[in-house]
Amino acid sequence: MQTMKSIAINPDRLLDNLYELRKFGQYKTGVVRQVYSRADMDSRRWLWEQMVQAGLDARIDGIGNVIGYSGKSLPTLLLGSHTDSQPVGGWLDGSYGVICALEICRALAENPDTAHMSVDIAAWADEQNTYHDFLGCQGFLGLLPPQVINTAIRNDGHRLEDALLAAGLDGISEQFLPDRYLGYLGIHIEQGPRLDIAQKTVGVVNQIAGCREFSVSFFGQSNHAGSTPMAMRHDAGLAMMEFVSVLNRRYHQQATRQSVWTIGEVQLDPGAACVIPGKAVMTLQLRDPSEKQLERMEQVLWQMSRVMHKGLKVDIQVEKTINTPPVQLDGKVQEVLCQAAEQHCPQRWQVMSSGAIHNVALFSRFMPSGLLFVPSIGGVSHSVDEDTSEEDLITGCQVMADAAAELISLAS
Amino acid sequence: MQTMKSIAINPDRLLDNLYELRKFGQYKTGVVRQVYSRADMDSRRWLWEQMVQAGLDARIDGIGNVIGYSGKSLPTLLLGSHTDSQPVGGWLDGSYGVICALEICRALAENPDTAHMSVDIAAWADEQNTYHDFLGCQGFLGLLPPQVINTAIRNDGHRLEDALLAAGLDGISEQFLPDRYLGYLGIHIEQGPRLDIAQKTVGVVNQIAGCREFSVSFFGQSNHAGSTPMAMRHDAGLAMMEFVSVLNRRYHQQATRQSVWTIGEVQLDPGAACVIPGKAVMTLQLRDPSEKQLERMEQVLWQMSRVMHKGLKVDIQVEKTINTPPVQLDGKVQEVLCQAAEQHCPQRWQVMSSGAIHNVALFSRFMPSGLLFVPSIGGVSHSVDEDTSEEDLITGCQVMADAAAELISLAS
Repeated sequence: MQTMKSIAINPDRLLDNLYELRKFGQYKTGVVRQVYSRADMDSRRWLWEQMVQAGLDARIDGIGNVIGYSGKSLPTLLLGSHTDSQPVGGWLDGSYGVICALEICRALAENPDTAHMSVDIAAWADEQNTYHDFLGCQGFLGLLPPQVINTAIRNDGHRLEDALLAAGLDGISEQFLPDRYLGYLGIHIEQGPRLDIAQKTVGVVNQIAGCREFSVSFFGQSNHAGSTPMAMRHDAGLAMMEFVSVLNRRYHQQATRQSVWTIGEVQLDPGAACVIPGKAVMTLQLRDPSEKQLERMEQVLWQMSRVMHKGLKVDIQVEKTINTPPVQLDGKVQEVLCQAAEQHCPQRWQVMSSGAIHNVALFSRFMPSGLLFVPSIGGVSHSVDEDTSEEDLITGCQVMADAAAELISLAS
Repeated sequence: MQTMKSIAINPDRLLDNLYELRKFGQYKTGVVRQVYSRADMDSRRWLWEQMVQAGLDARIDGIGNVIGYSGKSLPTLLLGSHTDSQPVGGWLDGSYGVICALEICRALAENPDTAHMSVDIAAWADEQNTYHDFLGCQGFLGLLPPQVINTAIRNDGHRLEDALLAAGLDGISEQFLPDRYLGYLGIHIEQGPRLDIAQKTVGVVNQIAGCREFSVSFFGQSNHAGSTPMAMRHDAGLAMMEFVSVLNRRYHQQATRQSVWTIGEVQLDPGAACVIPGKAVMTLQLRDPSEKQLERMEQVLWQMSRVMHKGLKVDIQVEKTINTPPVQLDGKVQEVLCQAAEQHCPQRWQVMSSGAIHNVALFSRFMPSGLLFVPSIGGVSHSVDEDTSEEDLITGCQVMADAAAELISLAS
């Protein structure tokens, strides 16, 4: 294996920029920076300035994407992530990828050997699905149905249209030029515990799990909790919980090591302590990198819903609400990422799948794409406790920088 | 058994009044008449007029109780129920008891043989626990802690203080004179299916089940639903559902025919489809007419919470929020009610316990008290579908009227 060029990134600048970005909407050690909030828009303007200072032709487009275009000659590598947060989020989720992109752009420009390399960088809007899943990069990639801008709403009913208006945005996004790009690279915290437990510094993602989501409803009969004997009840809540208990057992029997299933939302109706629930609704999310395994797990759900309603004395209705297929990432890009990882943290990296969906999955439909992970301490994410050691943050950026330069060299 | 005097009630007036009362807040065949709402206050003023026309000294007190005092010589029998509804309620829940009381008061006055008999009637405020459990009759009985008026809030945060102010009420209730009353009688729809299934017309209640309510909390670790492997999860929601499944099995094994248990409220935190619940909270209500059985069921809960947290990989916290002991109703009053029932619907009545708590349980601490049930068709209540045949409504009132007259005769 030939040795790659090592790019001189500036670790202090990388960390300083990360801490500076955290100040926008900082809450304890995390951030409250939901898309289009004041803190979010302030952070976008700050980022725009950083891009301009880095010599890019930078724009905040009409849906809030901050994109910095290189003026150098093609082919261009696109590096991106996001800076918007969960309602209460961690400081690295997305932000780390954006600041790495900025650092790599600067480092390449500062090195005479690489100053000619063309890199665009971007922070996509609403990656956290506040109004719409991957709103920003879907807009950029031309994947966004036009009605979304006028119809999307936040959980609490707030309209995307109004949020854009308040943020001074016109709803029209930049569109990408496919011929411009040789590929797309991202880096992200793992948001899970595998690297941390394995004491690895870098993960090279080979595939992104597919996700199928279902809304499962149980229809019973609401009634007084005191005066209705157990034998005469049609308790939708209890039925749901018994159903989940069996489903959980079945899934444990047939799960691969990468299968996960989650019931994140549950609602009982009418939801009063002294009333037997007449209706219960839950969301069920299935994730696995194998389409076949997802299909097997889905079939268990359908089969159980057809069989168990009688014993549980309720009607069961299943509706599929999300069906995102698994994605295999580009082999050549992976190879370069592995090589860079081996150079900077020999034997402390691994190839792994991603359980979370990332914007890389969308870009991979249009160009060779790759994704790196750095460890999340304790596997914690979507929490103010989310963290990664400074050493790992620096190594991750270094691996990505070298891989970026190598990919541009190879394509030139 | 000696034959009782039969009181000539007016069935058409009884039904007309019931239908007229339904018009206040009518929704489909039920009512939306939560306490202190406009419809509720309108219905109280209407009821006050009916009482005045029936010759009573009627008042709407400072917490909304509508009370009609008889001017006749002691001893007095008190008849009461409530007219406020669940958020969406049935037309007979409470209202039937109030209109029966009104009809009996009129019927006794119209009959020269019984015109001397002294009957007070009342519609107690907030029997449906919109702001506070049994607010109205607790106030009347002097059981209400004084701070309740200033601190009680509705589920949505609306303050009792503000509701009273808006309704023009000063928060000060009438207080009962213990020496005035020989006893208390109520009649209510069963709100359960037992009479309907047994094809009985009347139930004479001998005991009211006790109720213990618990808030059970499960503390896990919130995390990303995609990137956290199953083996590393501390899923509070799944733990709750597995816990309930085992609890349900244990309770089925040790239940008496009258034991019921209900999980009416459940909350997952943060409650998003793609986030593993870090916290889950549920209410558990246990009811049984036997204190011993309630204690056994409670112990199972404590025991399970101490044993299962390890396997479920969560912390479990149990808090007892309600502890209402079972109530045995007065034997002599029961005897009179049984005799009246046998006279008007021979063999179509039964002695039974009440799973629901009724204000009779509170009055029984101060005076001999009795409670009659009429069937709920299909056992349905707290729903616009709640109904009872007109024939049963009339017979129930007739049984209560005869028993009332007999109780007053016996005490004179």
